[in-house]
Amino acid sequence: MIETDTLMAELINVRTRQGSSLYPISIDGGSLRSIGEVAAGIVPGGKVAIISNRKVNGLYGLIVTNALKKSGLKPVTHLIGDGERFKSLRTLESTLKFLGENKISRTDLIVAVGGGVVGDLAGFAAAVYLRGIKFIQVPTTLLSMIDSSVGGKTGVNTSFGKNLVGAFYQPSAVVIDPDVLATLPKRELTAGFCEAVKQGALSGTKLLDLTQKALDEKLAFGQFDRFLAEQIRFKASIVAADERESAEKTDAKSRKILNFGHTFGHAIEKATQYRRFKHGEAVGHGIIFAAELSKKLELLKQDEVDLLNGVVHRAGKLPTLHGIDSAAVIEAFGFDKKVIGNSLQWILLSGIGKPVIKSGADLPATTLKSTLRTILSR
Amino acid sequence: MIETDTLMAELINVRTRQGSSLYPISIDGGSLRSIGEVAAGIVPGGKVAIISNRKVNGLYGLIVTNALKKSGLKPVTHLIGDGERFKSLRTLESTLKFLGENKISRTDLIVAVGGGVVGDLAGFAAAVYLRGIKFIQVPTTLLSMIDSSVGGKTGVNTSFGKNLVGAFYQPSAVVIDPDVLATLPKRELTAGFCEAVKQGALSGTKLLDLTQKALDEKLAFGQFDRFLAEQIRFKASIVAADERESAEKTDAKSRKILNFGHTFGHAIEKATQYRRFKHGEAVGHGIIFAAELSKKLELLKQDEVDLLNGVVHRAGKLPTLHGIDSAAVIEAFGFDKKVIGNSLQWILLSGIGKPVIKSGADLPATTLKSTLRTILSR
Repeated sequence: MIETDTLMAELINVRTRQGSSLYPISIDGGSLRSIGEVAAGIVPGGKVAIISNRKVNGLYGLIVTNALKKSGLKPVTHLIGDGERFKSLRTLESTLKFLGENKISRTDLIVAVGGGVVGDLAGFAAAVYLRGIKFIQVPTTLLSMIDSSVGGKTGVNTSFGKNLVGAFYQPSAVVIDPDVLATLPKRELTAGFCEAVKQGALSGTKLLDLTQKALDEKLAFGQFDRFLAEQIRFKASIVAADERESAEKTDAKSRKILNFGHTFGHAIEKATQYRRFKHGEAVGHGIIFAAELSKKLELLKQDEVDLLNGVVHRAGKLPTLHGIDSAAVIEAFGFDKKVIGNSLQWILLSGIGKPVIKSGADLPATTLKSTLRTILSR
Repeated sequence: MIETDTLMAELINVRTRQGSSLYPISIDGGSLRSIGEVAAGIVPGGKVAIISNRKVNGLYGLIVTNALKKSGLKPVTHLIGDGERFKSLRTLESTLKFLGENKISRTDLIVAVGGGVVGDLAGFAAAVYLRGIKFIQVPTTLLSMIDSSVGGKTGVNTSFGKNLVGAFYQPSAVVIDPDVLATLPKRELTAGFCEAVKQGALSGTKLLDLTQKALDEKLAFGQFDRFLAEQIRFKASIVAADERESAEKTDAKSRKILNFGHTFGHAIEKATQYRRFKHGEAVGHGIIFAAELSKKLELLKQDEVDLLNGVVHRAGKLPTLHGIDSAAVIEAFGFDKKVIGNSLQWILLSGIGKPVIKSGADLPATTLKSTLRTILSR
């Protein structure tokens, strides 16, 4: 079992508007069966509202419920729909109603068992129910293990944009059982690996190499856990330095850098009505776009662009960009919560591990358009 | 102008999970006209989303809008319905949509102009929109000036109870213009004074005396501002010591003490479907109930009970308790977010300025019932 002690230590020392957060992130095959002990350590004898979806619950619901009961806790389960469109205010409302009707109190607990949709929604529900109760994240997808369960961003989508409503709210614990990845659909794995490539590209050669090895299944026994831990450690270090993603902060340690690949990624998700791509897949294309844009701006060399393209493609087959209109993408760039004073901020690379934040205002429209042409016509 | 410097200093030193909050609370007749300067100091040149209701906007909307424009800001106005039933997830959603459609960004501002409903709803919207943007409270009722605008509790009501969904979220500034009280309906004044009496009873003879003098209109010119400042200072001191109303804290400095008069108050609001009483009026009855219960438990002397009854009655005429069934009140005690492990916590007094928290489990049911009989049969 890898107890990411260093990570914990880093989080201990963070003082942000959210205050100091200290919570253990454990990575251990089979740890789903010991979720009861973790939960009982937080709310001994309490009620536990499990929030999950039908599919994940069908696979792991009984294990989690039994583990909680065995530790003297009283679990009740609320299932939400599977898919990004259920990450909505509507689902939030029904979830809050479930909590209220089951008289979940301030000294009870929420356990989110699922991927990013479940984690973001359950975390937001935990943040606002009774103005905040404790919750545990049990991420069951690769993406949620290394990305969305780390850093306290919770929230829902709205008619005016994705993730525009939410809260910064830290869990009491994160329990990662890598064994559950065995049942993860291939596209979900690809999506997760795209975010892993993103974090590798931002962090440096070491993490990018480790990610490549994980992709090539060249890791020795136990080394996959280390890959997860290093990914989490990287994300946590960025979050620790800039938990609230301060608008003013624009250096390489800004939380904004985690949006590498996301401006184009969000835009193609939107241009295809969120139907063609999984979020991570769109980010895969976004990494390739940002690398190309970085090259056109003479920040990144061709061999580094090729390296990134190669790793993204090794992550898995991405749905094609075919038929996406460049005008629709430009239109979709228009509103995004990263828009500050009506100008986009682009996360680019001046090398592997060297992110640069560039304001859209400093970026020639012709370069942007020619990059769009290059990428969309491939 | 009273700049409550001491208050600011108190808030500076608070370190809670919400982090240290520092914001000025200004109390000054006519200060509505200088709201532009305050706002421009926070978001120079930014957009300002004013959230208000039709009635308040009809009286003061133009003053606020003009003041903001004069300071180079771009105001847009969103009006919500007037009344507690509009403090809902439905109104939150329409408010968030308004913010999104008007492309309010992270570097823009929300200004809440109104009473508790507007302040609680707008504050919650500010807390969750883009995971938190800045906001200013401009309370226009006595109750919101001395109570709901202080302490960072924001939220909405739901089908399963009042104020059960929300966030702890501090404003960037509070601007109080006591001149607006001239247009406040009499019942609203009474409701505000009931909360003032509550805070006086909890704080001690000094604040209770000052409150009595304010009620008897015996304050010299400028002294009404001091009454407001002292009320705010008291509330802020309690909040500073226990911002999140920790479940474990049960001493006289717990934020829970601010629920004095609220257990019975909430119950009669619920038993009358939130139609008969304004919240503050229900608290007025709740103070009398809690005083009587304290006496029956031999905590409080008859002359102190009489004193409290006297001040509450001087606050104004309260809607009668006539026809409220004691069974309905007991039923209504059942769920409330202050319920910890299914037992109510009662805030009682062992003297003026001496709150005591008693668990419902330690309180004989017969005493509770006989107090109910005494109060409901008056």
